[in-house]
Amino acid sequence: MALDRLIENIVEKQNPTVAGLDPKLAYIPQFIKDAAFEKYGKTLEGAAEALLVYNKALIDALCDIVPAVKPQSAYYEMYGWQGVKTFAETVAYAKSKGMFVITDAKRNDIGTTMEAYANAHLGITDVDGESFSAFGADALTVNGYLGSDGIKPVLSVSQKMDTGMFVLVKTSNPSSGELQNLTLSENDETIYFHMGKLCEEWGNELSGKYGYSGVGAVVGATYPEQLTELRKALPHTFFLVPGYGAQGGTADDIAGAFDKNGLGAVVNSSRGIMCAWQKETDCKPEDFALAARREALKMKKLLTDVTGKITLP
Amino acid sequence: MALDRLIENIVEKQNPTVAGLDPKLAYIPQFIKDAAFEKYGKTLEGAAEALLVYNKALIDALCDIVPAVKPQSAYYEMYGWQGVKTFAETVAYAKSKGMFVITDAKRNDIGTTMEAYANAHLGITDVDGESFSAFGADALTVNGYLGSDGIKPVLSVSQKMDTGMFVLVKTSNPSSGELQNLTLSENDETIYFHMGKLCEEWGNELSGKYGYSGVGAVVGATYPEQLTELRKALPHTFFLVPGYGAQGGTADDIAGAFDKNGLGAVVNSSRGIMCAWQKETDCKPEDFALAARREALKMKKLLTDVTGKITLP
Repeated sequence: MALDRLIENIVEKQNPTVAGLDPKLAYIPQFIKDAAFEKYGKTLEGAAEALLVYNKALIDALCDIVPAVKPQSAYYEMYGWQGVKTFAETVAYAKSKGMFVITDAKRNDIGTTMEAYANAHLGITDVDGESFSAFGADALTVNGYLGSDGIKPVLSVSQKMDTGMFVLVKTSNPSSGELQNLTLSENDETIYFHMGKLCEEWGNELSGKYGYSGVGAVVGATYPEQLTELRKALPHTFFLVPGYGAQGGTADDIAGAFDKNGLGAVVNSSRGIMCAWQKETDCKPEDFALAARREALKMKKLLTDVTGKITLP
Repeated sequence: MALDRLIENIVEKQNPTVAGLDPKLAYIPQFIKDAAFEKYGKTLEGAAEALLVYNKALIDALCDIVPAVKPQSAYYEMYGWQGVKTFAETVAYAKSKGMFVITDAKRNDIGTTMEAYANAHLGITDVDGESFSAFGADALTVNGYLGSDGIKPVLSVSQKMDTGMFVLVKTSNPSSGELQNLTLSENDETIYFHMGKLCEEWGNELSGKYGYSGVGAVVGATYPEQLTELRKALPHTFFLVPGYGAQGGTADDIAGAFDKNGLGAVVNSSRGIMCAWQKETDCKPEDFALAARREALKMKKLLTDVTGKITLP
């Protein structure tokens, strides 16, 4: 199942990092924007072109050292269908370079509607007998508020397509506790813990060969205690860990997310890697991709100081 | 605030219906598909063209009797960026015909990412000083699992743009209770009820002139008791009610969703209206839009038998 491919990529690269591709125009060097605007004007097309050029250069610079990318749908939708076209092209380009692609879209719905999302992002779209891959990622983030009706269509597409999902469990933001930390009458467990247990249950239908299922969980680096608690309670659930770097999570904070083989989690950095060129002293804008690579190597070092050598079980 | 415009449309049309635009290819008459495939082949472009022609005809047939439409993003994403282009064109066309447009995308994220979604679907996108409306709906459905960090960016865009949102509270699907019906230790209230109360709280920042705020709630027609309970408990929260018709909800089931003025809820029908031509005996495919209109008028009658005359407070 699909998270097996992510795990194999992590072991091969000895790096539990996923590079977030959240390309705001403000992050993109001026020379790329100037070239795009010259071609398409200061339009949504122009912005979408700048995003694509930027993403491709980052992917080229990262693909031999980082196992996965996570494009965040919102930053592409912001530039209209033109931005969504860049989103599709980014997913395809990263896959062509051997990266595992996690579409961060937090989709959620029920029945045939969720099936449409699953087919859009992980599966196949049928047009009167012809088959197309609309966005074709390897995994999709989903929100489980609607219960199993919103998960089963993704399970069933994932079984067919060798793909997977990450369900929001304990998110990295300051207000995540407003709902997720409330406890349930029946057993005093928190809502996030209950959601975590549902991931284990749903994962039974999508088990993988390294002990982790195709149903992962999103657990924020900003809550180290919960990361440790959930790692122990959810032995078959792989974690996607946002909140590292810009949001305040450190390598030490996420130590509890890993198992004894150094597996169990993939840690996201978006701004940290993408905007490295703006933070390095004396980095020329032309070297933005090299700066991203330098930052990714630094992050790899910090994370593997925590995990040690990462091995298949 | 934006739900005021929805309310005014409902009163003007004397119809608390929102027509769901979830255009699967299977719902679309063959002559429309043939024409689109002849132009673009059996491709995502071809499918997207068929969807657009179909939607426009439905909007033309409904816009003088139905106050609002609710395009469901999943069915457009399924056809790739080409489908998303049709989504944008559908929103724009429905608005040009005076309809209130609720984008059903159940988006959720935090901070700048949620701000990107809010700008994409309700606000303005800046491209180096030039302003564009990427999708430009009047309201957006959102999922509140991440707490107020995921709501505040939508509130702030809505204040600027005179738009609104509907937060998932008690969804219409069979498994909605798996999470939403669990009760909390602190007060034995259900999770959906807690989420409903959060809507009232968030709505304080977006109050409207008819007593309802710009923060509505999604509450399914399939749970009549909960509809009644929530209507009483949430006097400032307007309801978007899915699950009528194809999912089993009847006009009687939703009686409890309305206030004494016949306001308080807008009821969605997707397949019921869109596929009316397939269910009527002897309806020619060419008359699909007329059949949709007939079905919408039937639904209006059933709903207003329940609400009585709908008036502003």
